[in-house]
Amino acid sequence: MASAGCSAANLSSFLGGGATNATAAAEYICNNFNTVHDRFTDTAFAVDTTYLLFSSYLVFAMQLGFAMLCAGSVRAKNTMNIMLTNVLDAAAGGLFYYLFGFALAFGSPSNGFIGHHHFGLENFPNDSSDYSYFLYQWCFAIAAAGITSGSIAERTQFVSYLIYSSFLTGLVYPVVSHWFWSSDGWASAARTNGLLFGSGVIDFAGSGVVHMVGGIAGLCGALTEGPRIGRFDHSGKPVTMRGHSGTLVVLGTLLLWFGWYGFNAGSFINILKAYGKSGSYYGQWSAIGRTAVTTTLAGCSAALTTLFGKRLLVGHWNLTDVCNGLLGGFAAITGGCSVVDPWAAVLCGFVAAWVLVGFNKLAERVGYDDPLEAAQLHAGCGAWGILFTALFARKEYVNEVYPGQPGTGRPYGLLMGGGGRLMAAHLVQIAVITVWVGVTMGTLFWILGKLGLLRISAEDEMAGMDLTSHGGYAYEDDDYNTSLEIGRKMEKPGGNPVPV
Amino acid sequence: MASAGCSAANLSSFLGGGATNATAAAEYICNNFNTVHDRFTDTAFAVDTTYLLFSSYLVFAMQLGFAMLCAGSVRAKNTMNIMLTNVLDAAAGGLFYYLFGFALAFGSPSNGFIGHHHFGLENFPNDSSDYSYFLYQWCFAIAAAGITSGSIAERTQFVSYLIYSSFLTGLVYPVVSHWFWSSDGWASAARTNGLLFGSGVIDFAGSGVVHMVGGIAGLCGALTEGPRIGRFDHSGKPVTMRGHSGTLVVLGTLLLWFGWYGFNAGSFINILKAYGKSGSYYGQWSAIGRTAVTTTLAGCSAALTTLFGKRLLVGHWNLTDVCNGLLGGFAAITGGCSVVDPWAAVLCGFVAAWVLVGFNKLAERVGYDDPLEAAQLHAGCGAWGILFTALFARKEYVNEVYPGQPGTGRPYGLLMGGGGRLMAAHLVQIAVITVWVGVTMGTLFWILGKLGLLRISAEDEMAGMDLTSHGGYAYEDDDYNTSLEIGRKMEKPGGNPVPV
Amino acid sequence: MASAGCSAANLSSFLGGGATNATAAAEYICNNFNTVHDRFTDTAFAVDTTYLLFSSYLVFAMQLGFAMLCAGSVRAKNTMNIMLTNVLDAAAGGLFYYLFGFALAFGSPSNGFIGHHHFGLENFPNDSSDYSYFLYQWCFAIAAAGITSGSIAERTQFVSYLIYSSFLTGLVYPVVSHWFWSSDGWASAARTNGLLFGSGVIDFAGSGVVHMVGGIAGLCGALTEGPRIGRFDHSGKPVTMRGHSGTLVVLGTLLLWFGWYGFNAGSFINILKAYGKSGSYYGQWSAIGRTAVTTTLAGCSAALTTLFGKRLLVGHWNLTDVCNGLLGGFAAITGGCSVVDPWAAVLCGFVAAWVLVGFNKLAERVGYDDPLEAAQLHAGCGAWGILFTALFARKEYVNEVYPGQPGTGRPYGLLMGGGGRLMAAHLVQIAVITVWVGVTMGTLFWILGKLGLLRISAEDEMAGMDLTSHGGYAYEDDDYNTSLEIGRKMEKPGGNPVPV
Repeated sequence: MASAGCSAANLSSFLGGGATNATAAAEYICNNFNTVHDRFTDTAFAVDTTYLLFSSYLVFAMQLGFAMLCAGSVRAKNTMNIMLTNVLDAAAGGLFYYLFGFALAFGSPSNGFIGHHHFGLENFPNDSSDYSYFLYQWCFAIAAAGITSGSIAERTQFVSYLIYSSFLTGLVYPVVSHWFWSSDGWASAARTNGLLFGSGVIDFAGSGVVHMVGGIAGLCGALTEGPRIGRFDHSGKPVTMRGHSGTLVVLGTLLLWFGWYGFNAGSFINILKAYGKSGSYYGQWSAIGRTAVTTTLAGCSAALTTLFGKRLLVGHWNLTDVCNGLLGGFAAITGGCSVVDPWAAVLCGFVAAWVLVGFNKLAERVGYDDPLEAAQLHAGCGAWGILFTALFARKEYVNEVYPGQPGTGRPYGLLMGGGGRLMAAHLVQIAVITVWVGVTMGTLFWILGKLGLLRISAEDEMAGMDLTSHGGYAYEDDDYNTSLEIGRKMEKPGGNPVPV
Repeated sequence: MASAGCSAANLSSFLGGGATNATAAAEYICNNFNTVHDRFTDTAFAVDTTYLLFSSYLVFAMQLGFAMLCAGSVRAKNTMNIMLTNVLDAAAGGLFYYLFGFALAFGSPSNGFIGHHHFGLENFPNDSSDYSYFLYQWCFAIAAAGITSGSIAERTQFVSYLIYSSFLTGLVYPVVSHWFWSSDGWASAARTNGLLFGSGVIDFAGSGVVHMVGGIAGLCGALTEGPRIGRFDHSGKPVTMRGHSGTLVVLGTLLLWFGWYGFNAGSFINILKAYGKSGSYYGQWSAIGRTAVTTTLAGCSAALTTLFGKRLLVGHWNLTDVCNGLLGGFAAITGGCSVVDPWAAVLCGFVAAWVLVGFNKLAERVGYDDPLEAAQLHAGCGAWGILFTALFARKEYVNEVYPGQPGTGRPYGLLMGGGGRLMAAHLVQIAVITVWVGVTMGTLFWILGKLGLLRISAEDEMAGMDLTSHGGYAYEDDDYNTSLEIGRKMEKPGGNPVPV
Repeated sequence: MASAGCSAANLSSFLGGGATNATAAAEYICNNFNTVHDRFTDTAFAVDTTYLLFSSYLVFAMQLGFAMLCAGSVRAKNTMNIMLTNVLDAAAGGLFYYLFGFALAFGSPSNGFIGHHHFGLENFPNDSSDYSYFLYQWCFAIAAAGITSGSIAERTQFVSYLIYSSFLTGLVYPVVSHWFWSSDGWASAARTNGLLFGSGVIDFAGSGVVHMVGGIAGLCGALTEGPRIGRFDHSGKPVTMRGHSGTLVVLGTLLLWFGWYGFNAGSFINILKAYGKSGSYYGQWSAIGRTAVTTTLAGCSAALTTLFGKRLLVGHWNLTDVCNGLLGGFAAITGGCSVVDPWAAVLCGFVAAWVLVGFNKLAERVGYDDPLEAAQLHAGCGAWGILFTALFARKEYVNEVYPGQPGTGRPYGLLMGGGGRLMAAHLVQIAVITVWVGVTMGTLFWILGKLGLLRISAEDEMAGMDLTSHGGYAYEDDDYNTSLEIGRKMEKPGGNPVPV
């Protein structure tokens, strides 16, 4: 059955004989097949939308993960501040992405640089994208903003946060996602022609588009602001500033792991798609499962590498480092998760752990302070992930996930025998993201600094922003302590608690 | 293909000629089509059940959200108490809803007022409802009870809680859900005839059925009990009583956001449904995606409005208020989420934020104390959501989501040109919910109060209920402090920790 | 339509007359039907994979639940330690299960005792299993390890943990899962012939395979190590050692509840499967919904039983006990969740609550210390669940969920009139799991003890493992307290905070 269903004319000629009857019979049969065809269309929409919506919800859960991870990683006095930025990433991001972010990113047809349709979801949905796709992309946009807020935590004015977050979610990020993910982005592997180096960039779920963008933006902010008071002593020696709750760090990390399945495996957008001929056990559903597996293995491998590596380097089994290593493995595998083998994912995570260790060492040496290690982790491991994909992408997977070049096939991983064109495209990706985000966000942070809107005062920093900007601390102990005392009195005979 | 599949008789007459062969051929072909038809039936059940089950799980996660939100919003000394009520909402609700709640709510055919089939899931499943539907509705029932427990937190005897919670989940709520959601409820928009004002009430996911019911019940309880000791000073001036953990508040709020996608988008019950002709890109899957988007936008808009509104009114950027504003936006959009446009959802959230601000002001003025702002938020913003739907419901969406009136079409939003009949029905809804819940729950709380079972003693309230009723506090610090001291000793040379 | 689609030869003979045309017509029609058939195959893969992947993600969320439950149940000084073990269960488990665990468990064809294909996912996927199945089984493997870590919490050397966890996830657990779940396991109900007692074991989601295995392993470890210092006083009287955070206990418990829907209902692996003839409203989707309902009801019933039971026995409404009772109900229903009626599930939970109460009493009497009650809960209630299934499994459900014995049907519950063969098989299961896990894990813990690798020193135990092994405590308060003081100064006029 061709995609158009059933041909009554053809069938009629076969049934032949009595022309009237034959035509009626053929039409009858073909109408039935056409109906069947239409119902398959409905079914595919329902199945794919179910898949995409629940993937979106998982990606949304990452925002919860970021909030808890960030909260646990800062000192108690700045907890409300950092969580408010996380909630607002989602909330402000929702409005901005609705009003123009989505239009700039996916408003095709475009000039290759920036989209310009569907502002405020005008003329939407249409036959190429639906509301569930908008929701999914919104969740990605707010994830990028969430990364950045970690880098500049504990010392940034709230108003500054509102400005850069809107700018990032509304403009900087959408433009990058247009370049690499929109079907007419200049560097997208989904273009039908004019592929960059005959290849285009394979950044499947965004090691570059999301993680490097968020990380480089954070780097610009943290460099402009300088380190927190007390992070380096007078001789420049780094002083560890522990976050206030390891429990929240683990909660956040595992929530991010949970959500990452939506992030990576969900990026296929649809699941009901055969590869080649219908009816085989192997199709997009298998590739999606494989992507969940590569994601898992890269994180696991990075976590274990960090565990033993840090044990050797520092001397104890450090949970926070393991959590960060795990996330570094995820950030790295994100770009190539759909086009590499499980064994390669293990290797990806192994290297990612050392990349993070290295960039953290470098950061301490140059006096760079990033409370969440966000730039090191997301930009550093993200960049490694981009290179990793260019090295290990497998031929079959690349042509299945990025079809449309049936003649010659696509370039694939350098170490898999696929030549250097994919690597060339990926080096370009690292360069343009660094430059674009560095220039736009760097300029913005510089202006905010010049206007005196960026960094809080030393007094506020010592007191904590929760008190100075947000009306009070996250934790209220007094009443509890009072009640503890009253409670103890009550346990003794004769205790006489009085209302205060 | 008609829904009955393929007609062998018709086909046979077309194939004509040799009657025997023609009949056999026709039967052969038709049998094949009938099998195809049956497999589509199977497929739809599998897809719709997958959609509904995972939506249910999301709604269940809201119970986790309520538990964390409530825990963080009360003082540390009452944490175990409030969380126990949340766990029991789910557990007791499970048994009661299984035994009779579901039967009262959805045991059709009924008299329009109350259902009376399927007690204890007898004669279940059947061709109109399945286990997954029961699970989904159970999750809704326990959400209503969760709302109420917030209003009367920190001062209610546990036995009282057990009584009202059973009464609410087992009777009061099921009856309301029968009226508005059962296919033969007297005010349901799903009736085939005898629609209220020719319209019926469009309360898609329950701004009224869930949020107003829970909120009004909470209002009755909190009014009967009066404010917590210390909430208003001698001159009646309100004194802020901060919850003990902002982190838990944010965790709970974001979990509720996460779960709300199951609550609103899941209320479609099935996703594999074409609107009009099969084979179009636009169908129930699109409406579901749109519902997730309107839900998101209403919450985002309410959160931002609250952020800036409170900044102007109070002077700082308050996270807890933003969280409540966000939830107010969700409570408001819940009723009309499926039948309004995204731009209207933004408006819905904007107004919801001010509704909540206003009711909170009013509550302080009249000396009403609701630790979670539950009545203000769920009843207040819920009522606004009911009006909002009557104002902004769009014609096309109403007829797609509530089909069955093909001739004249249905009444829709007043401001969209749909006349006043929908508004009339919705005003009736607000009135009957207020009266029904007010009378039943108000009477119950009054009786409990008369019997001395409602409010705890002043001593217990000062000491905290965790100590007096639940065997101890949520947080155990002593050991940690001991270990801290030992740890510090160990860090000094010569420290000599001994087992205690 | 037979599963092979449509027969052109048959159809051609019917269409008769002009042979050429008839053949062409028949081929044309049959090709269309074959295409339809293939698209149904694709659809089923997509739907079933969606179902299985999201179920896997839910089961993964249980790891988050374990981490929070364990963290809350230990003293603050050991929080980082226990959470690190939970993170590593997932991470190390990921690599081990990829390298050989999955091959040992499901590498069919096997000798009935142990699998030996697909090491490192070689020759994978194939027409009998896909990546999503691997992911799902990995989540189960790490759950077993998570159970054990609770039993030996607060006193076990970290290196010991690394060893036993690898051994359990990589060998002990996979072998058990092979016996009972693999299609050629010697005691599996999925065998085509040679069923144990003509029945095989019905342990649907693993009351035995997961919970008893994890619980018995924990029992071995905790018995070898002995109780924590201070858990029993000099006269042997038990001293309650409360965990440090009731909030985390509730968070963990509710996350486990959330994830258990993936665990039990997800164990069907696929959802698009008719029972008997296609086209009926009743199929595997209904059985899956019923499984979610039985799971819910067993937990609810156990929670309520514990609430009132403990109130009678101890005198207050204890939240932690309710949480454990709830989990005991889940552990018990896990084995038979798919083959019993909802009313039976209520009974299952009721008994499970008393089983847990009884084993906890016994544990205190014999001086057994298990910080999470893990052995009592998972092994005790798990064993009850195995017996429960053998008593209450219903005939129809057994034959639907475990098809393939159409002639005589399968043995089912003893009390349902199904004879004693299922019970015989289940008694064998309890025995072999106890012996296999007891011997392997008991030996391992004994060797670790002899090597001095098992238990930490008394000094370390008093100081807490976070300080001695993991580089610091979970909670960092100093800075907060400092800032509190500074904050208070700032609130007074003239306060002059200075940077430290």
